[in-house]
Amino acid sequence: IAHQPNDVIRKIVLTIDTMNPTVKNVEYAVRGPIVQRAMQVEKELREGVKKPFTEVIKANIGDAHAMGQKPITFFRQVLALCSYPELLNENMFPEDAKNRARRILQACGGSSVGAYSASQGIDCVRQDVARYIERRDGGVPCDPDNVYLTTGASDGIVTMLKLLVCGEGASRTGVMISIPQYPLYSAALAELGAVQVNYYLNEEKCWSMDLSELERSLAEARKHCNPKALCIINPGNPTGQVQSRQCIEDVIRFAAKERLFLMADEVYQDNVYAEGCQFHSFKKVLFELGPEYSDNVELASFHSTSKCYMGECGFRGGYMEVINMDPEVQAQLSKLVSVRLCPPVPGQVLMDLVVNSPQPGEPSYTTFMKERTATLSLLAEKAKLTEQILNTVPGITCNPVQGAMYSFPNISLPEKSIKEAKALGQAPDMFYCMKLLEETGICLVPGSGFGQKDGTYHFRMTILPPTDKLKILLAKVKEFHQKFTQQYS
Amino acid sequence: IAHQPNDVIRKIVLTIDTMNPTVKNVEYAVRGPIVQRAMQVEKELREGVKKPFTEVIKANIGDAHAMGQKPITFFRQVLALCSYPELLNENMFPEDAKNRARRILQACGGSSVGAYSASQGIDCVRQDVARYIERRDGGVPCDPDNVYLTTGASDGIVTMLKLLVCGEGASRTGVMISIPQYPLYSAALAELGAVQVNYYLNEEKCWSMDLSELERSLAEARKHCNPKALCIINPGNPTGQVQSRQCIEDVIRFAAKERLFLMADEVYQDNVYAEGCQFHSFKKVLFELGPEYSDNVELASFHSTSKCYMGECGFRGGYMEVINMDPEVQAQLSKLVSVRLCPPVPGQVLMDLVVNSPQPGEPSYTTFMKERTATLSLLAEKAKLTEQILNTVPGITCNPVQGAMYSFPNISLPEKSIKEAKALGQAPDMFYCMKLLEETGICLVPGSGFGQKDGTYHFRMTILPPTDKLKILLAKVKEFHQKFTQQYS
Repeated sequence: IAHQPNDVIRKIVLTIDTMNPTVKNVEYAVRGPIVQRAMQVEKELREGVKKPFTEVIKANIGDAHAMGQKPITFFRQVLALCSYPELLNENMFPEDAKNRARRILQACGGSSVGAYSASQGIDCVRQDVARYIERRDGGVPCDPDNVYLTTGASDGIVTMLKLLVCGEGASRTGVMISIPQYPLYSAALAELGAVQVNYYLNEEKCWSMDLSELERSLAEARKHCNPKALCIINPGNPTGQVQSRQCIEDVIRFAAKERLFLMADEVYQDNVYAEGCQFHSFKKVLFELGPEYSDNVELASFHSTSKCYMGECGFRGGYMEVINMDPEVQAQLSKLVSVRLCPPVPGQVLMDLVVNSPQPGEPSYTTFMKERTATLSLLAEKAKLTEQILNTVPGITCNPVQGAMYSFPNISLPEKSIKEAKALGQAPDMFYCMKLLEETGICLVPGSGFGQKDGTYHFRMTILPPTDKLKILLAKVKEFHQKFTQQYS
Repeated sequence: IAHQPNDVIRKIVLTIDTMNPTVKNVEYAVRGPIVQRAMQVEKELREGVKKPFTEVIKANIGDAHAMGQKPITFFRQVLALCSYPELLNENMFPEDAKNRARRILQACGGSSVGAYSASQGIDCVRQDVARYIERRDGGVPCDPDNVYLTTGASDGIVTMLKLLVCGEGASRTGVMISIPQYPLYSAALAELGAVQVNYYLNEEKCWSMDLSELERSLAEARKHCNPKALCIINPGNPTGQVQSRQCIEDVIRFAAKERLFLMADEVYQDNVYAEGCQFHSFKKVLFELGPEYSDNVELASFHSTSKCYMGECGFRGGYMEVINMDPEVQAQLSKLVSVRLCPPVPGQVLMDLVVNSPQPGEPSYTTFMKERTATLSLLAEKAKLTEQILNTVPGITCNPVQGAMYSFPNISLPEKSIKEAKALGQAPDMFYCMKLLEETGICLVPGSGFGQKDGTYHFRMTILPPTDKLKILLAKVKEFHQKFTQQYS
């Protein structure tokens, strides 16, 4: 867009030329142009504009409740009790929900979730998180002082990157991220002015991490920056793989040898569907490798209330655990988080309920387990369904959705469509996804928004739509892909 | 602290020397060393350590609920209904609370506050904010597209600064902030690597803004940086003044003439106590000055759910309105906020209730008004009490607490105490406040944490403790100040 001529007359201070250039470099595909267009299309439908479809089906973002997933009853009961403690006098709530609410309220200033908490998070919630991590990791100890509650996992990841990033020119901090990646990483690195160091996941081997690729990427990066950290998303976003124990071990040994700070994004830790796959936390594997590693390798691990079986994105709850962090640096971290006062307290409450869910014998246990299992089973079913149907389409190849909430299939695009996209200044898979949206009402995110090997094309779709809609979606994608291929052949 | 020798052996990546240096420059007094010590003292008391007092009284932070202020019943009812919509079937809630909850839930994905909202905030909430601003400003129009919901006001302020700040050396962005200031500003500027440009409030004239001081400050700054923005906190934090309409007009004319982007922190807009004082929003005054100003001057204004009569800090709700922002820059702003997905939805709900509170004729109106008025009257009473008692102490001079939640009295410190403090490497008012804490259990924040004229000393205290505790606190401060003065004379 050219500048408005009245910029001069208006003597405006902040223009595209005078603003912070690092912000201009930020891109975030998950809410990018395709999603903006999808919202316009929805508006047009509401206004009665005729389209070849009657509704937009959004599979662009891991937003479970928006796709019809129901919240866990127990969690919402406790949240209601904490919001309006007069409800503690009512008979309609089970005792365990009331007990959780009372315990949390006691830990809040003035017994109100409206008080600021400690900047690091409510003490008893951090203690519960620590016990949860210990149970999850088969007894590996966790110190609540190393747990920081966050405003969703994004906040924790950005905060850690902020601590790590510095330098200019050839000594600028480099941060290794997987390609494909979740674009929060590229966005944060762009904003912080750090160097994004790409390592490619191996699509042929179900998006696994190859040691040789990590080595190549690091050697390359060392020529022009100072690589200090290695980020892993496991289970994978956007790629849906679950890394093997062996792979995690290799990555830890690599980080130790090469002196890299590990950042493990483990927000999908309960989202594991495939036979033979299992979630291994980086922390557990680190400690199983013995003191040579567990006393030395620095690790930050992130979790969230937004994914898994709860899908409570709107509450922006999360935590990070830091391991082997230098005490002086950790003091700086604690100071840094104090500037924003505290993470949202309702999100902290929810995080507590996730790590301290109803136990056998408690009145809410049966319902909780039923709801949790139903949600995870349905996701497993939809993961399988997605993979199976996509793989029936000539020109679409889809790895198994072992975990997380996404499929990231490879799509063959005809040469003619690639040329036409380039003539329009669009990435070929953006061109494809835009056409898909206009013709079918389906909103997916082009692979180019996550990064991919040159010359390959993908899209990311969530497996979250209700089964009936997911089937419609997959059938439409199939039909569209065939038509698109014909049209441009 | 010296480095641990094992840093070398542990081959740690992230040390105080390799971390981001801008983070090291961040300071945040409101949760600084004095508050950490207060928490230790509380712990010691719990453990039975003998002290000359039995409890710590905290007047260091504007955290109303922690100080016993009760939440507004209507707000909490709607929050409970939104958290657990099954409650909509119960008879215990008034119809207007249910209607508000239904309307908000309808605007949420999947009718759940657990879904992500639009990054800019829920549409209907932004519309309600716009109507609130129009009513507040006597009909000056407000476009909901210019309203961004935020994670508390802090988030909005940091986001705006992020857009503004760039450059190196003599072209680095300068941002003018009042001294004394709320240390979020200095912390954010340090982290962003911007130049903090101080202008001093006039303590003799009840902390008003002097045009000549703004001119001096700007002229000085232009010698070594590129000043682009001017921040104002009104009503004032930590200084408790309410700026006059004339003063705001002067500031706007100054910003227009000097091409400065205005940032108006107006989170205390309902906290006005003194006779003859009134809150004037920067936006209203801007529009009353006519199109020469209202078409030209760029302004961002911030509000929050944390202060005023609601004091709901834990929910991290807030909004900002941007006026006359360049459309290309605003597109960048919208992109930037999308990376963090959305502000916490419960905070958005609360923000909606604040701008769309019960109306005459609705069932909750009477109770709402009673609660609101009681809270604000009590604050007005405590503002007066604080000023009156502090001014009876020889060596303490206190401006009227016209608004906000703080008193920032000037304290005379004996030369000997200043020397002793300096010998300990402490700011003299930090030395004073630490001694006050150790001897009386009262936790205040030293003026040096907010900035003050060289050679003057202050502390900030909130007026929030319950009246009986506030009286004890003030009596203890009085006694302590007299003893301290004697001891060091």
